[in-house]
Amino acid sequence: MHGRNHTAQVVRFGQEFLLIDCGEGTQIQLRKFKAKASKISTIFISHLHGDHYLGLIGLLSSYHLSKRKDPLRIFGPRGLDEIITSHFRWSQTRLSYPLEFTETTTEGKVTLLDHPQFTVSSFPLQHRIPTTGFIIQEKEGLRSLIKSKLQERPLSLEAIQQLRLGQDYQNANGASYSVKDYCHPSASLRSYAFCSDTAFNPLLTAYFEGVDVLYHESTFMEADSLRATETFHCTAKQAAQVAKLAGAKKLLLGHFSSRYPDLDELLAEAQTIFPNTSLSEEGITYPIPTS
Amino acid sequence: MHGRNHTAQVVRFGQEFLLIDCGEGTQIQLRKFKAKASKISTIFISHLHGDHYLGLIGLLSSYHLSKRKDPLRIFGPRGLDEIITSHFRWSQTRLSYPLEFTETTTEGKVTLLDHPQFTVSSFPLQHRIPTTGFIIQEKEGLRSLIKSKLQERPLSLEAIQQLRLGQDYQNANGASYSVKDYCHPSASLRSYAFCSDTAFNPLLTAYFEGVDVLYHESTFMEADSLRATETFHCTAKQAAQVAKLAGAKKLLLGHFSSRYPDLDELLAEAQTIFPNTSLSEEGITYPIPTS
Repeated sequence: MHGRNHTAQVVRFGQEFLLIDCGEGTQIQLRKFKAKASKISTIFISHLHGDHYLGLIGLLSSYHLSKRKDPLRIFGPRGLDEIITSHFRWSQTRLSYPLEFTETTTEGKVTLLDHPQFTVSSFPLQHRIPTTGFIIQEKEGLRSLIKSKLQERPLSLEAIQQLRLGQDYQNANGASYSVKDYCHPSASLRSYAFCSDTAFNPLLTAYFEGVDVLYHESTFMEADSLRATETFHCTAKQAAQVAKLAGAKKLLLGHFSSRYPDLDELLAEAQTIFPNTSLSEEGITYPIPTS
Repeated sequence: MHGRNHTAQVVRFGQEFLLIDCGEGTQIQLRKFKAKASKISTIFISHLHGDHYLGLIGLLSSYHLSKRKDPLRIFGPRGLDEIITSHFRWSQTRLSYPLEFTETTTEGKVTLLDHPQFTVSSFPLQHRIPTTGFIIQEKEGLRSLIKSKLQERPLSLEAIQQLRLGQDYQNANGASYSVKDYCHPSASLRSYAFCSDTAFNPLLTAYFEGVDVLYHESTFMEADSLRATETFHCTAKQAAQVAKLAGAKKLLLGHFSSRYPDLDELLAEAQTIFPNTSLSEEGITYPIPTS
């Protein structure tokens, strides 16, 4: 803390709104920053330390009070289901919307959500209790056609569909049309990885190699690295090392200990190793542009 | 809500700090208003709707992280113990301080805390789930002696002690000393009652007759009284009627529905029936002076 709130991130992909972690006060912050809380379709909880999920029951209650009808999916560790169920049993609430809970595991990379445009997967982190990170990976969309080519040689609807899917086409007469001749190269596929909370473990970088934007916890500074090790957290320097090892394009630091009122020193520490680093700030949107 | 936070009140009596209800974000508000969260010895939870207790686990976690050693007492409804235990089991936390939980009941008035200077009792409210109000009642302290009387006729230490306790004294020779001759009249004993959430029920006023300050929910205005009845809440007018029936000296309104951005109308509605009414505002201390 230090006037800072607990972890919660809205990730928007097109019309899809996802929430990663939901610390106490998340619904208050969502309102403050005019985020579209009602549009959130899926919530991912990394682990059951209070600063990562204690706002969840309040958010679920508010959805109920506002008569939400849209289903809500929650992915989170074992135990979360019991905690949610227990609250609504004692408050005698029958939710106005369907809630679907799926338990995450810390066994390797697991695809949780397979959306037409992207996937969301969990992967293990190394913390005091079972914890997962999450990675959102864009899927290849339909290719766009090179218009001048179409004018030279018109294509059947079937040919167009197949080429836009990225597959070469051959017609009944044996004439062939290759994707690379008829379609623009596909845009690079964007990805975003979330790593909090975790001890420093270079092996974990395999799960998010080449990621566009990496959010990584940096609870401490290197001067307090002993404390980081004891508590299964990372320093800003370690977060930067992880970003470098993973070949990430950009690093967002977060989850700062309240012992640091001024975060610029953490930022500077990380930037000595990984220059394209920013502090993640409350209420700010970080776009991930297509390159 | 409407930029307003959930229910939580710190009640201070001398060096004793009590917390009544603990909605989501309470620890954030305590910090914001520089309330001495660490001094809170006892927490009272009225009922298990989220807006009255969802900040509790976060506060208990923060006490643990700040290595609290002082014991903490919690009084609350059946189920709260299970909710607390479940959280700390899944987060694998062994609290740094002793936590003592006592279940409240809705069977009449029950003394929960018997402090040398005051008592705290629960009493039933009428809501959708088991809910109690709380009343804090000052105990009679030692009387102060009328100095001129002592100069006329000196008293033994034993006589002084007994008179200051408010009891007449007779010495071995049969001489008697009456409290009203030797002591100033005792100051009136202060009291504070908390009623949230509850439907309108005039019978409940017996539990806090003659209270100095009554905090009472006024979720709705009289124009929405049907909604109040359906949801087991009160209107501002009903809260004022309760205050009047109870013979309270002052009424504090609270627990306003987010449908009312401007609360002055609620205040005006209550004041037509009970003039000495205020809105309870966040971060404000309401003293209860000795009269």
